[in-house]
Amino acid sequence: MTTCTALEPDLLEGFREAVGRENVIESPLEVFGYSYDASFLPLDTRTVPQVVVRPRTTAEISRVMVLAHRSRIPVTPRGAASGRTGGSVPLQGGIVLALDRMTSILELDTANMMVSAEPGVRTIDLHDHCARQGLFFPPDPGSWKVSTLGGNIAENAGGMRAVKYGVTRDYVMGLEVVLADGSVLETGGKAVKNVTGYDLTGLFVGSEGTLGIVSRALFRLRPLPKARGVLRVVFRTMDEACAAVQAMLLEGVTPSAAEIMDAACLEAVALARKTSLEAGAGACLILEIDGDGPEALDAQSRRIEAITGQAGRIGFRAAATREETEALWAERRGLSSAVAAMAPNRLGEDISVPRSAFPEVVRRINAISRATGLRIPVFGHAGDGNLHPSVLCDLADPDQAARAHEAVDGIFKAALELGGTLSGEHGIGVSKRPYFAGAVGPVSLEAHRAVKGALDPLWILNPGKIW
Amino acid sequence: MTTCTALEPDLLEGFREAVGRENVIESPLEVFGYSYDASFLPLDTRTVPQVVVRPRTTAEISRVMVLAHRSRIPVTPRGAASGRTGGSVPLQGGIVLALDRMTSILELDTANMMVSAEPGVRTIDLHDHCARQGLFFPPDPGSWKVSTLGGNIAENAGGMRAVKYGVTRDYVMGLEVVLADGSVLETGGKAVKNVTGYDLTGLFVGSEGTLGIVSRALFRLRPLPKARGVLRVVFRTMDEACAAVQAMLLEGVTPSAAEIMDAACLEAVALARKTSLEAGAGACLILEIDGDGPEALDAQSRRIEAITGQAGRIGFRAAATREETEALWAERRGLSSAVAAMAPNRLGEDISVPRSAFPEVVRRINAISRATGLRIPVFGHAGDGNLHPSVLCDLADPDQAARAHEAVDGIFKAALELGGTLSGEHGIGVSKRPYFAGAVGPVSLEAHRAVKGALDPLWILNPGKIW
Repeated sequence: MTTCTALEPDLLEGFREAVGRENVIESPLEVFGYSYDASFLPLDTRTVPQVVVRPRTTAEISRVMVLAHRSRIPVTPRGAASGRTGGSVPLQGGIVLALDRMTSILELDTANMMVSAEPGVRTIDLHDHCARQGLFFPPDPGSWKVSTLGGNIAENAGGMRAVKYGVTRDYVMGLEVVLADGSVLETGGKAVKNVTGYDLTGLFVGSEGTLGIVSRALFRLRPLPKARGVLRVVFRTMDEACAAVQAMLLEGVTPSAAEIMDAACLEAVALARKTSLEAGAGACLILEIDGDGPEALDAQSRRIEAITGQAGRIGFRAAATREETEALWAERRGLSSAVAAMAPNRLGEDISVPRSAFPEVVRRINAISRATGLRIPVFGHAGDGNLHPSVLCDLADPDQAARAHEAVDGIFKAALELGGTLSGEHGIGVSKRPYFAGAVGPVSLEAHRAVKGALDPLWILNPGKIW
Repeated sequence: MTTCTALEPDLLEGFREAVGRENVIESPLEVFGYSYDASFLPLDTRTVPQVVVRPRTTAEISRVMVLAHRSRIPVTPRGAASGRTGGSVPLQGGIVLALDRMTSILELDTANMMVSAEPGVRTIDLHDHCARQGLFFPPDPGSWKVSTLGGNIAENAGGMRAVKYGVTRDYVMGLEVVLADGSVLETGGKAVKNVTGYDLTGLFVGSEGTLGIVSRALFRLRPLPKARGVLRVVFRTMDEACAAVQAMLLEGVTPSAAEIMDAACLEAVALARKTSLEAGAGACLILEIDGDGPEALDAQSRRIEAITGQAGRIGFRAAATREETEALWAERRGLSSAVAAMAPNRLGEDISVPRSAFPEVVRRINAISRATGLRIPVFGHAGDGNLHPSVLCDLADPDQAARAHEAVDGIFKAALELGGTLSGEHGIGVSKRPYFAGAVGPVSLEAHRAVKGALDPLWILNPGKIW
């Protein structure tokens, strides 16, 4: 890792001219605030940027990139810094390009059911803006109250509703991207069918800021579901719960969320809420269903009751009122903090496996838990095989820290052995980088490097990420 | 355009060793059969390959590519050659890599609802294979009885059901691709959520054989809809028909196909079927609906009846029996040949516009028709803005030929002006190549060239395509 020395005064003056003096941050105290994100990476003085530049327009981003490119200075784009793998950490210092001033929703095109917006718009704001017109922007990463669209695109964010509605990539119809040399690329558009050239739109989605700076995005939308309901189904084992989800999907009864939690999670919740654990409960599904109205929900609920009955459920509850709905969701929403409260530290992971391998990967994680002597509660999105094991430990204890990292290694190994991946929705960033080459193999690594070099020949964009 | 001279005897022997003597075709008469496809490109002796090589396995493809790469010989992959833009035409001669022996469906994984198959499998065969297990492979290009999966992937094939179910790219979960130098790249996998590195899978889909040879593909599937129905709705104008489709989609009543035809098409059909045109009919929708059972279809049909009533329809028919269904679909299926029968030649195009621009692009095409004095019936997929205008002419008449090409130019111009694209589902290939750079602009063209050069540094794969 190389760190930049102080930037040339001329260059700084160039940035000030490009974005306005007040939008160039240089004071050490202030730039420190742009050196970390929501991942578990330890703070590192080498990741402090030399300067933070806050452009307001595409043209301003372009001017900044022209200057950075000419001087070969690393540029790390930054949204809300709510990422979990260090994607927005300026690993080699240089420039942090903060997109927090680009917060306009540009056009809501109801006729074509599309919306275009700037990268600094918060996910929930876009959702709410569209919902007021009866339209639905489905991607709902857990951090959607703070996360911004640019970050969602960079990490191809998922969320609970991915099981029915897919992930961010499924909604991006077109992008405006400032490339490393400052040129402005437009991809895609409002034509929903388009085979004019390569899918550059899709290539930028999930590229973690290493190929270009997204300055505007066009998303497709869906009609807002008219009604939503929540079901809570309890099983003796994770196997039964997973089998029930599989059966639902095969039957074409697709819940809009299918959140699963294991016995350790149920225990954490019971502890946090000061309730007692249900007898025999080894797994629980919180299902959201949506549809055209109460009849559609009733029909789905009845079919899910029947399917989970055949799968051996021992408890079934459908929220009948808004309060009950709220109470059921509160259990899932409070889960992360309930689990975190069980130990001084929590290493939360994000692996993804073929749906059918969900029970097996949980069994292997349980074995890793026994072998390392650390508790590893598992929750996740059962409908799409994306799970979040939490390794609970005290990192201040060197022995526990070593065992925790051993557990994380084992979890990644298990995911890959079962045909899964290192990341379902958080990206590789810095924290999973050591595992990337092994996971994708040498030919893919070379292909990644070639594509990177094609679009960013000087390798100045978000260096040190992914591999 | 450069044409290769005869290949070295050593190289030919290498191909024979790689794939077996009987799978290397050299006779001029036979190789001529690999020089054209289903597009309107005139035959050209320069597009005749020197040799046709028919590998059976990934390893054999790899060996062929190593030899071709070493000798810098152009390689054009070929499936069923049913493409409409010349994608599989070996523009610079060299090697045609025919994938017609790679016809195995490898694994139908019902638990994960996925299927993997080789590139030479016909689309309809994959569909039927999955349907027998209650699973649904939705992409249905018009040519699906002959088109093969490799070609579908190369051109990101769409079809009638795209309005509800999306296009080929939406179903490709992973690929095995032999790169230009013979190395074998694996992308994606069975984990439905995956942000491990760049979306190389999506990059290869729609790349028209210019980035690699797909040797195996993994597709996701859906549950097979349990019931299907067909509706025929007649309107006075295309505007009303388009407005009706918009209203359906906004209401969340998404037909599984929404085929539209204009007055000229209706006339062609009436002529071909020796029936009379309905009084006042200026546009017609053939809608397919699908769902869980008869009740679900009835509910959709009633809602569509109401919505189209508000949009001013003058005729509504729901097929009640299998025979009626068949009769309604026959009208749409026979449309292309009914239109073709109206003139010696038909230049069938494939543009795509934002859904809301459908009526306006039809108006502009009508104006082009008047200006050129050529009939241009329009049909297409109203639900996703993808339309197929047919310029009717006699190409043997130089004046008509000139006006026909003027009409095609005008159609592309209209599509681009309205925010649309040159191709919705057929690709750019050779026939739309002259329009590509203008459509995407210089920055995108440069990005395409950079990505191409990154993955195929010697530019041997399907040279002369797209741009």
